[in-house]
Amino acid sequence: MSNDTDDLDNLIALMAKLPGLGPRSARRAVLHMIKKRGLVLLPLAEAMHRVGTTARECLNCGNIGTKDICDICESPKRATGEICVVEDVADLWAMERSQVFKGRYHVLGGTLSALDAIGPDELRIPKLLDRIKVEDISEVILALGATIDGQTTAHYIADQLPGVKVTSLAQGVPVGGELDYLDDGTITAALNARKAL
Amino acid sequence: MSNDTDDLDNLIALMAKLPGLGPRSARRAVLHMIKKRGLVLLPLAEAMHRVGTTARECLNCGNIGTKDICDICESPKRATGEICVVEDVADLWAMERSQVFKGRYHVLGGTLSALDAIGPDELRIPKLLDRIKVEDISEVILALGATIDGQTTAHYIADQLPGVKVTSLAQGVPVGGELDYLDDGTITAALNARKAL
Repeated sequence: MSNDTDDLDNLIALMAKLPGLGPRSARRAVLHMIKKRGLVLLPLAEAMHRVGTTARECLNCGNIGTKDICDICESPKRATGEICVVEDVADLWAMERSQVFKGRYHVLGGTLSALDAIGPDELRIPKLLDRIKVEDISEVILALGATIDGQTTAHYIADQLPGVKVTSLAQGVPVGGELDYLDDGTITAALNARKAL
Repeated sequence: MSNDTDDLDNLIALMAKLPGLGPRSARRAVLHMIKKRGLVLLPLAEAMHRVGTTARECLNCGNIGTKDICDICESPKRATGEICVVEDVADLWAMERSQVFKGRYHVLGGTLSALDAIGPDELRIPKLLDRIKVEDISEVILALGATIDGQTTAHYIADQLPGVKVTSLAQGVPVGGELDYLDDGTITAALNARKAL
């Protein structure tokens, strides 16, 4: 094979680096895209170029949008006084899909991790403390993962905010979850937090 | 969410249509790409645009390249008189990776299928018959899948080529395969084709 296929090999190599794809699935995806050139490949190239040139992090909360301040931070409707702290933009999107939270967000960009040498200054924690001084905040909801690093981060943030109401998401049986498939930690948490019917 | 995220949603929707990706993995991939904008997102957009504007099917064999006649069909070294017939470009790539076949290919673009109403004219079978008349062919190797449609297609092609040496890939135990995990059909084929050591 000569340079006839260099562009193809390059595209496959780039696709194979995406999370969830490997060399084999990247080849399959590329062949699929070439077969649907007008419907998939060229629109995808265009969409990536647009996002690549316009996407930026909101200077206030870390959400991804196309402006310096994202729509959620800008909307007066979202000024409920509640800030939901999440690890990542994916978590913000998950919260938005549930449509239950009406306030604003703060994206940390990860969790504290001694192993990976990630301290408060590597995350967006100083900015969170600034926001709580400046904005009119009544409650900080910590929606961090139920992992050791997530809970460490949650406790660290709570310690930095004396006098502020800090809550975290409830732990328990997920909707549709069967007890038989749950780990002991979840069952313990669900039992300890049991409610009267 | 307003038009701030339209480009992002569009990119995620397009990515989610690729084989092997769904909505969740598309979101993960897009966030990953945005984080690695200069290393992943923009190079990928550029690579897709290049392939989208230059990739074409070889007029002779159906392989994907950037010219009317692909490198393999053009190379005098590959004029061994052997044509390897495959279903799809992915199969051609798999054969090329093994580096064991030195001849040329013919990509059918699928298999005969009564259920999907795919007959010989929907595939590149007439072009294969033309090539066998024009090129100096000593052997046609059918490297089609060991499925019902693949084997039907193989027998159909063999019937169209009286007087031409037609072979097919051997069936048997895959390298590294354990008998315990093999289906009965493979074990039967391997036993029937057993060889003296």
